[in-house]
Amino acid sequence: MLTLHFAPRTCALASLIALEESGLAHEVKMVDLAGSEQRSPGYLAINPKGRVPALVTDRGVLTETPAILAYIAQVTPAGRLAPLHDAFEFARMQAFNAYLCATVHVAHAHKFRGARWSDDPAAVETMKAKVPENMAECFRLIEETMLVGPWVMGSTYSVADPYLFTMAGWLEGDGVDPARFPKVLEHRARMQERPAVQRALARAGA
Amino acid sequence: MLTLHFAPRTCALASLIALEESGLAHEVKMVDLAGSEQRSPGYLAINPKGRVPALVTDRGVLTETPAILAYIAQVTPAGRLAPLHDAFEFARMQAFNAYLCATVHVAHAHKFRGARWSDDPAAVETMKAKVPENMAECFRLIEETMLVGPWVMGSTYSVADPYLFTMAGWLEGDGVDPARFPKVLEHRARMQERPAVQRALARAGA
Repeated sequence: MLTLHFAPRTCALASLIALEESGLAHEVKMVDLAGSEQRSPGYLAINPKGRVPALVTDRGVLTETPAILAYIAQVTPAGRLAPLHDAFEFARMQAFNAYLCATVHVAHAHKFRGARWSDDPAAVETMKAKVPENMAECFRLIEETMLVGPWVMGSTYSVADPYLFTMAGWLEGDGVDPARFPKVLEHRARMQERPAVQRALARAGA
Repeated sequence: MLTLHFAPRTCALASLIALEESGLAHEVKMVDLAGSEQRSPGYLAINPKGRVPALVTDRGVLTETPAILAYIAQVTPAGRLAPLHDAFEFARMQAFNAYLCATVHVAHAHKFRGARWSDDPAAVETMKAKVPENMAECFRLIEETMLVGPWVMGSTYSVADPYLFTMAGWLEGDGVDPARFPKVLEHRARMQERPAVQRALARAGA
């Protein structure tokens, strides 16, 4: 049994969808971010970084969405959730996931988490103001240069898809009109038709 | 033949070391960041993100350090540069690389690249001021919870090691005394003894 430490409206949704797609037995434990549970001694013993997601396996705890997604795909090869037998295609998928993790998520994080990078409340406000521009530029690059369609990698679904779906769900809240990105919008709608996505959203309380 | 688009004093050093370790035939093309070559039409045709590294293969271009590192390890299994036959250990390595990519590198980037996240020069100065604190906290977590020793993953060298080595090389410049992190310092010294690291540093002009 795998246990996913999860919080609604976070990137942990990508891992939850991938678990639902994989068929792996898993349970979800909610982490109360509003109550700062992620910084409690109990949670820090699971993930010293104090973040979600964390996936508890019988071998130990895994963190970081790109690592968890590739892991789920690798341990369920029959699920064909990643191009496991083509190192170039696998790297292309991983490059996409790394871009979401290190650039898109970071652009988004400057909205509510600016205090990570500045102690000055006025500076934090200026970071917030730039989030719509940065998120729009990220999604322009995704739309024009990365999302092949119908799925991220092309004709085959992979764990890059729930990750994109998760971040594309943040656009409106980040002040970006998703209508600017028709391929991303179509992808979002296509994802919502998948039973695994519907199950994940129901479990996520999202 | 692989071509690595590279710039000195960037995270591209990790990929160059991994290439040197791998035995793969490769050439290095310098990208002149001071002259903004990364935003030239020629370079954007290679990597639309306008960043280094980019690894040109005969199948296409790969970007993002964690993806390039895993790729190099996967196409040279005899080099044993990653735990390729153990999905959990592979994910643990990937989680480490994702942390460097999305948290440590981002903490560092607020020193010279704060303008990515705020248009206000005064705000950018406050970001710069917080870099020593954030980098020190990242390396405290690495020292205490991630770096097993003697190598990142334990007794076996992997592509996580050149990545840590690259970022640990930024500590002094980021205002952090590396003596606070003896395991990281020992790791840095151990890396410098490797012929592949010495070759990469010579080629990098670093």
